[in-house]
Amino acid sequence: MEQITIKTPSKTYPVYLGEKVIPKLGEVLQSLDPAPKNVLIITDHHVGELYLNDIQSELDEKVSYETFQIEPGDSQKSFDNYYACQSFALEIGLDRSSVILALGGGMIGDIAGFVAGTYMRGIRFIQIPTTILAHDSAVGGKTGINHPEGKNMIGVFHQPEAVIYSTDFLSTLPENEIRSGFAEVIKHALIADPSFYDYLNNNIKSLTDLKGEHLLNCLTRGIEIKNEVVSQDEREKGIRAFLNFGHTLGHAIEGERQYKGITHGEAVARGMVFALSLNKKTVQLGNDLKSWLNDLGFAPIPKNLSVPSLINRMKKDKKAAGGTINMVLLEQIGQPTITPYQANDLEKKLTQFLEEN
Amino acid sequence: MEQITIKTPSKTYPVYLGEKVIPKLGEVLQSLDPAPKNVLIITDHHVGELYLNDIQSELDEKVSYETFQIEPGDSQKSFDNYYACQSFALEIGLDRSSVILALGGGMIGDIAGFVAGTYMRGIRFIQIPTTILAHDSAVGGKTGINHPEGKNMIGVFHQPEAVIYSTDFLSTLPENEIRSGFAEVIKHALIADPSFYDYLNNNIKSLTDLKGEHLLNCLTRGIEIKNEVVSQDEREKGIRAFLNFGHTLGHAIEGERQYKGITHGEAVARGMVFALSLNKKTVQLGNDLKSWLNDLGFAPIPKNLSVPSLINRMKKDKKAAGGTINMVLLEQIGQPTITPYQANDLEKKLTQFLEEN
Repeated sequence: MEQITIKTPSKTYPVYLGEKVIPKLGEVLQSLDPAPKNVLIITDHHVGELYLNDIQSELDEKVSYETFQIEPGDSQKSFDNYYACQSFALEIGLDRSSVILALGGGMIGDIAGFVAGTYMRGIRFIQIPTTILAHDSAVGGKTGINHPEGKNMIGVFHQPEAVIYSTDFLSTLPENEIRSGFAEVIKHALIADPSFYDYLNNNIKSLTDLKGEHLLNCLTRGIEIKNEVVSQDEREKGIRAFLNFGHTLGHAIEGERQYKGITHGEAVARGMVFALSLNKKTVQLGNDLKSWLNDLGFAPIPKNLSVPSLINRMKKDKKAAGGTINMVLLEQIGQPTITPYQANDLEKKLTQFLEEN
Repeated sequence: MEQITIKTPSKTYPVYLGEKVIPKLGEVLQSLDPAPKNVLIITDHHVGELYLNDIQSELDEKVSYETFQIEPGDSQKSFDNYYACQSFALEIGLDRSSVILALGGGMIGDIAGFVAGTYMRGIRFIQIPTTILAHDSAVGGKTGINHPEGKNMIGVFHQPEAVIYSTDFLSTLPENEIRSGFAEVIKHALIADPSFYDYLNNNIKSLTDLKGEHLLNCLTRGIEIKNEVVSQDEREKGIRAFLNFGHTLGHAIEGERQYKGITHGEAVARGMVFALSLNKKTVQLGNDLKSWLNDLGFAPIPKNLSVPSLINRMKKDKKAAGGTINMVLLEQIGQPTITPYQANDLEKKLTQFLEEN
């Protein structure tokens, strides 16, 4: 089992990572002060069917629990589900000493974390990720829900008490979810660690390579990089914005497609290729990345996207300010920069990119 | 003009207090870094009609602004209005450098603060209170909205950049709003300052006494006491709970009446009398308080309340835990304590109290 300690200005907490680490859950719950009398598990139907029993069997008899299940899919990170979770929490009498368990992928972590962050102005929660993608979202304290006008537009920073990451829960992931998560691993390598990027590039030739030690390395190093960035900038005032590499266009593509047909990571991966195309020094790297993504079976950029609509969404990005779009580019692997673009300038570049890609 | 500096672990900010202090708004906005390019004013129709022009005329030409108005009344602190504010903010292109101005009473401060605290995971806001009650809610960083199952059940802690409190905005307050706010002034005196309580008791014989220097004294000392408590306990882990004096029953009464027919402060005032009745040492003080409230024209406790329903609501109070109801009592003025009650025990005492009051 790996243990990574996440230090943020507001909280320090452990990530337990490895095969069959769920028994850690009981330990963590017992160590909490005040001890929770009840627990709310928030999960989706798919994950619930597979792993809910494993979680429930770790809960002490003294702790009562209830489960709230929502449909799978990022489109479920909605206001309606947020309200339904809050209503259920009140109905079952969750109080300030209670704990929410977020059992699922990034979608569940985000919405359950936002419920925890705002229920009675904030109660404790524990992340139990079940996807590769969640290595990214489970660390850093970002929580939130989507608005029809934009992804993750409403939320809070709220750190979990612990992250319990059992890699056996990843064995049932469908291929497109593996790709989606691996895109964020690639991102972490690109913004921070050339040798980790080489390692990935040399060892992950197909999705079937993502298992055992390689999988554990991907998650561990990905979390470490995320942690290095976040610990320096919890509230996203500075360098944390580098984590947005690939996301400005990625989010816009997802939004235009109503979060359907292309996964988050696939959209971000194509966004990284676009970002690399914007700096002459990284154009070749972008082309190589594109080939690798294609070899791994990543979805291509959807056809018939409206460039003005994409640009409009990019202007509404949380990192945008006053009509200028701030893009994360690379000088080289491990050296990200923030480059502001006027919307019409970026529109031309994006039009050309979409024609060629 | 009075200036009080509020220090919390997460932020230090000024409260400007006095006659015609609105020009401070322009100064505060200009001092912000980064400078906001746009501002969203959230207010209610009633306050908007009276004071929106005064605010707008203080805004620099370089700052664009939009206004979102909701209906007056605490019942408007709803999920629907919260969502409508968020949608409007996205529509007008509010970004992370933008600022929300909360122009109104506690209801506006709470909902606008919660919008600011969760829009893009938190943007800045400035409180411009227009009621006496808001001297309480404008300091301490509590924001939130109501759920049909309980008041202020969903929210975050989010501190404003500044509070600009222009007492001339209080000249148009209806009598029941003056009473509602004065109840919290009495509460601050009771939990913290015997001589302030004597001052109030000797000088505020009728609502018409609440003007000029007396009004300024009430607001200033009330804010100072609130600040003393909050600065020691921003996240309500300990002594901040003393501020809940009178609120456990008060909130339950408001909830049972769907926040209609009795103001927040009037309900809290009756809750304080109940709390004082629970300690032999303060029974007489409670009786005296009751007479004073009646002289000031405070609404009596509504008839035909269901005691089991009230107790049920008190069990759901945010300060409750695992079926025990934590009541704030006084040993004497300035000496609050937390006393846990079993629900059935408190139910008997409340039944008797309601028969006698």
